[in-house]
Amino acid sequence: MIFGSDNMLGASQQVLDAIVRANAGLAASYGADDWCAQATAELAKVFECQVDVFYVSTGTVANSLALSALVPPWGAVLCHHQAHIINDESSAPELFTGGARLIPINDRAGKLQPQALRDALAGAPHPPHNVLPRALSLTQASECGLVYSQEEVSALAAIAHDHDLRVHMDGARFANAVASLDCSPADVTWRAGVDVLCLGASKNGALMAEAIVFFDPELAEDFAYRVKRAGQMGAKGRFFGAQFCGWLQDDHWLSMAGHANAMAQRLEAALLKLPGVRATWPVQANEVFVLMPTALATRLRGAGAVFYDWHLNALPPGVTRQDDESFVRLVCGFGTQVEQIDALVAAAG
Amino acid sequence: MIFGSDNMLGASQQVLDAIVRANAGLAASYGADDWCAQATAELAKVFECQVDVFYVSTGTVANSLALSALVPPWGAVLCHHQAHIINDESSAPELFTGGARLIPINDRAGKLQPQALRDALAGAPHPPHNVLPRALSLTQASECGLVYSQEEVSALAAIAHDHDLRVHMDGARFANAVASLDCSPADVTWRAGVDVLCLGASKNGALMAEAIVFFDPELAEDFAYRVKRAGQMGAKGRFFGAQFCGWLQDDHWLSMAGHANAMAQRLEAALLKLPGVRATWPVQANEVFVLMPTALATRLRGAGAVFYDWHLNALPPGVTRQDDESFVRLVCGFGTQVEQIDALVAAAG
Amino acid sequence: MIFGSDNMLGASQQVLDAIVRANAGLAASYGADDWCAQATAELAKVFECQVDVFYVSTGTVANSLALSALVPPWGAVLCHHQAHIINDESSAPELFTGGARLIPINDRAGKLQPQALRDALAGAPHPPHNVLPRALSLTQASECGLVYSQEEVSALAAIAHDHDLRVHMDGARFANAVASLDCSPADVTWRAGVDVLCLGASKNGALMAEAIVFFDPELAEDFAYRVKRAGQMGAKGRFFGAQFCGWLQDDHWLSMAGHANAMAQRLEAALLKLPGVRATWPVQANEVFVLMPTALATRLRGAGAVFYDWHLNALPPGVTRQDDESFVRLVCGFGTQVEQIDALVAAAG
Amino acid sequence: MIFGSDNMLGASQQVLDAIVRANAGLAASYGADDWCAQATAELAKVFECQVDVFYVSTGTVANSLALSALVPPWGAVLCHHQAHIINDESSAPELFTGGARLIPINDRAGKLQPQALRDALAGAPHPPHNVLPRALSLTQASECGLVYSQEEVSALAAIAHDHDLRVHMDGARFANAVASLDCSPADVTWRAGVDVLCLGASKNGALMAEAIVFFDPELAEDFAYRVKRAGQMGAKGRFFGAQFCGWLQDDHWLSMAGHANAMAQRLEAALLKLPGVRATWPVQANEVFVLMPTALATRLRGAGAVFYDWHLNALPPGVTRQDDESFVRLVCGFGTQVEQIDALVAAAG
Repeated sequence: MIFGSDNMLGASQQVLDAIVRANAGLAASYGADDWCAQATAELAKVFECQVDVFYVSTGTVANSLALSALVPPWGAVLCHHQAHIINDESSAPELFTGGARLIPINDRAGKLQPQALRDALAGAPHPPHNVLPRALSLTQASECGLVYSQEEVSALAAIAHDHDLRVHMDGARFANAVASLDCSPADVTWRAGVDVLCLGASKNGALMAEAIVFFDPELAEDFAYRVKRAGQMGAKGRFFGAQFCGWLQDDHWLSMAGHANAMAQRLEAALLKLPGVRATWPVQANEVFVLMPTALATRLRGAGAVFYDWHLNALPPGVTRQDDESFVRLVCGFGTQVEQIDALVAAAG
Repeated sequence: MIFGSDNMLGASQQVLDAIVRANAGLAASYGADDWCAQATAELAKVFECQVDVFYVSTGTVANSLALSALVPPWGAVLCHHQAHIINDESSAPELFTGGARLIPINDRAGKLQPQALRDALAGAPHPPHNVLPRALSLTQASECGLVYSQEEVSALAAIAHDHDLRVHMDGARFANAVASLDCSPADVTWRAGVDVLCLGASKNGALMAEAIVFFDPELAEDFAYRVKRAGQMGAKGRFFGAQFCGWLQDDHWLSMAGHANAMAQRLEAALLKLPGVRATWPVQANEVFVLMPTALATRLRGAGAVFYDWHLNALPPGVTRQDDESFVRLVCGFGTQVEQIDALVAAAG
Repeated sequence: MIFGSDNMLGASQQVLDAIVRANAGLAASYGADDWCAQATAELAKVFECQVDVFYVSTGTVANSLALSALVPPWGAVLCHHQAHIINDESSAPELFTGGARLIPINDRAGKLQPQALRDALAGAPHPPHNVLPRALSLTQASECGLVYSQEEVSALAAIAHDHDLRVHMDGARFANAVASLDCSPADVTWRAGVDVLCLGASKNGALMAEAIVFFDPELAEDFAYRVKRAGQMGAKGRFFGAQFCGWLQDDHWLSMAGHANAMAQRLEAALLKLPGVRATWPVQANEVFVLMPTALATRLRGAGAVFYDWHLNALPPGVTRQDDESFVRLVCGFGTQVEQIDALVAAAG
Repeated sequence: MIFGSDNMLGASQQVLDAIVRANAGLAASYGADDWCAQATAELAKVFECQVDVFYVSTGTVANSLALSALVPPWGAVLCHHQAHIINDESSAPELFTGGARLIPINDRAGKLQPQALRDALAGAPHPPHNVLPRALSLTQASECGLVYSQEEVSALAAIAHDHDLRVHMDGARFANAVASLDCSPADVTWRAGVDVLCLGASKNGALMAEAIVFFDPELAEDFAYRVKRAGQMGAKGRFFGAQFCGWLQDDHWLSMAGHANAMAQRLEAALLKLPGVRATWPVQANEVFVLMPTALATRLRGAGAVFYDWHLNALPPGVTRQDDESFVRLVCGFGTQVEQIDALVAAAG
């Protein structure tokens, strides 16, 4: 009954097999190996275009490094006020961008709305006294477990580009979003105006691997220097490549994400049948956010369930937590099984 | 016949097995798992003392982060002019220390000499106009494949401490040094005055794992913030822990290093029998540095051998490369086999 | 009719005289001169305590450097959402703190309220994933021209200290606040819990000089290194000292500030008599914020008046700008004369 | 008898008069005033070309900011091992460049030699593992008081440009060099390949003012952001402009520098007549380096003379200090008078 985070699982068997396979023999170091080359070729197919790809070990460094290619040290990145980059990555963005600023947009709609972005960009800037907004960061799936449609990404990216901002997508759960939308990965990235995607594999079946995918080769020009300088040019780069090879093969990544999404749907349905549990956000990816009686939350945890209380400012507008309620998040992953959901329901007694 | 670097090999079977074992089931994220706890307990045994340990993905980030705990942004790190931190890690040290400086000591003796260190520290400093030397970085085994004895480390560390410098050890090949010295790891680290050791496993049988080992708990106080901010707090931290568990178990790390050292001895002996090959530095760890006729180097490479030309400023004093000679480095690893050495000799024909 | 900013004036005659006097002869460089020593002794008298003082050339660098002594690179500074440090100093705070973050508090009360600060500090922090709040920055006089009383500073500082935050005061208009409160400078600084004050002279009669005044000697310990590294250790430091000597002598600084405040009162009274002009914030220092018919603003500017439109999010709660209104700020300085105010009224026709 | 440094003098009367003149009335803030505009127009005449000019308060910040426009954070700046930027500016270069590295060239010839530069650039670089040399910094007049001729600057700049390095000139004593060469300022800057000059006025008659002069407009594109972010966009920018107006008017800067140079010649001649005093470097600008009996140095200082012992590694090749000798530097400035030199000689008794 572990619904704490999708990163509490290990790697999928297919990814692990690829690692074991890649381990045999000698290979060029620092990413100049065949596995990385093959992974990048696969990603080009997945995204139906030329891509420049860099492999790193965590989502935090992926996001921060990608942003460093988009904004100067006197620039700013606009993002949702609940974005992982502003809430959960310490000041890594400041470190890797050389001191650029994150500007939170206080949007309560669960994903960024065009008007909120326009408001944030309004007002006569006063250069060089202010920081200079130069990037928009979107999280797909969003901070509240919602998924941006192609139209929604396009609308936001168009506003961004109109203001000389580049568009970064934090895709820690990109696989879940694509599985949910059932669209081409290209449709919700470069075709919709995304300039760089941080494609997360670690939360969805990899051991430790993230890909920074540039759709604009100019942005990637000096990027190897940034990767090296961040201490991310792993000597045995083949293991990043191998993970992605295993992850992408036969749409494994989408199967895993689809499974996690389905489990989340099932979990939500089961929870909503329990007395006193109230829906908050619709479940569109692999995260379930509900209000539940605190007594119930306590009982479930007492029975061994793991899930986190969530930030109250992430509640939908108009929804208020009662004194005896808890606002909680439950996450499903590639390894979540029906039995765990059944056990949770049983524990609710 | 791959003698290019010890990082061209994959992981040892024992390390890989530990990863596979750790993959099963759920685990707490971000290093709060049992594998990391066990690895740290093992390291405490290995070093015969309390240690604060942080696991990261590369040697570059290990060194840079460790140094950031020793020197302020207006400080300086003294190191050998051939040190990996100054030659091969881009400006990662500057990034992670917030702009501290590396000061090269032009010592030609293959490892730092006390007098050279004293000279570098001489002269009336002029604070706050100058940068402030606050750390000494030693590489064990050294840049020329030599090993610092306990007495040598102690002598250097004593000078450093007398000048208010802390002592950092870049232990990318620490295992090879310990295997060579056949001493307790404690003897050449904290007992000799080392404050923090970057213990490299990646070059010696791990897949991707380095441990930053603090012997002074004060230095480790805020270090989790540094690790997080560097994008090194891997969600699935258990895989760092697992690698070290496998690596340390039954002195596996020392066996592998001892094997690599023995292979290097054998390789040197074989090379020196070839016509025109001249020794430069004694082989004390797993690296062999020789001068060889360029024609021979070409022939060997033509037969598939991989090894690198080396920096001429790394030649011992008094040794000069002739016009028709190449100064080359050959490295043995845990997986190097006698057959490869025999094949090399055969190729020399 | 120049009410654009108090920095559009030059230096007062008394300050200029001190510069001319200090120019004669030779003096030790880098702040080791008699003028700096005397200025610091005067400041100790003004603040009735031992102080560590560092002189720099701008308010931006004063604030950023002072904050760098309070927060680590993974720390955060809480401040009013209209604070100069977050709106008008580019990313200088990030540069000098090594990448710490400014967190805006969206308080609409014209100066920070204790409850808003408590709210910003509420919620279980999640170290090391979040940035760590370690400083509160207050602006005295405030962003809306209001003045914090000793009780108000004390209340905020107490909350800050309870949460392990140090207290920074941006005193670009500190003289105006003290003149308005008619209190001892000590009362609204260290006696109320302020740890470091950036005492601005440039906006109030100096040529180019700001003093960073530490009330806690520990915070000042390494500060000379920060000043040097910021390129602020001026060779001819005596000119900073001389400006402050002239500025402090015979309470010149308070006389000038008192005059500016009185002019602001008079200006407000005159403006409020004009048809359609509406008050917004009470005038407590030297800034006047009013809503006026846009037609009037246009007429005044046509007649040569200089003043700026102001940010709408700085309006008091409940006050709304009408479509035909402008929200404007007018600033008085030590050199503002009654005739200018009369001329403005006359121009209003 | 103050020969410690040229920064121990105040401002010249002509510069001071300009400040006093500029003080009257109101002016636009942040450098948008008429004085700055006029100063820049004058500099365009002086350099016979379009220039982009930014005014800052110290040489340290001028050099560091200028370099930040030339090298990325993973880049390196080559400079003489005695350069002010590497020896006397703390880690300001690292701070403002975002962590780029200074690489010292151990040239003993008193000014950089083409061969030493070529050697430093030799060797196969190994990107992105190494830092990337992207700028050469020359000091004019040099660290040993020598002056680079147009041919010498051209030769070095040509090598630099051939290797994709831009050329920075630290012109803290540029006026002395031009006065010594009696050439057009353009000849030893952009016509010889200099991309950006830090033109120092503080050491030669200004109060506190340095100009960063870009000869390539592309380098200046984002520079206002760098200046602002460095806390160098002084509110009352007119005072920088006024100083340069006064400094440049009627070739005042060259007259002052010429006087200082002449005094240095005279001082050297007088010193060399004293028993036991030995020349080291020829006097080409306003600095005198000699070896003198330590007993003499003590006697002179006892009589009130101020001058500094100098770094032994700045001695010319082949010249060795005897045990009873001191290697000392004496500096003349715009205000040095014959009487001081006579008094020094008299004190030598």
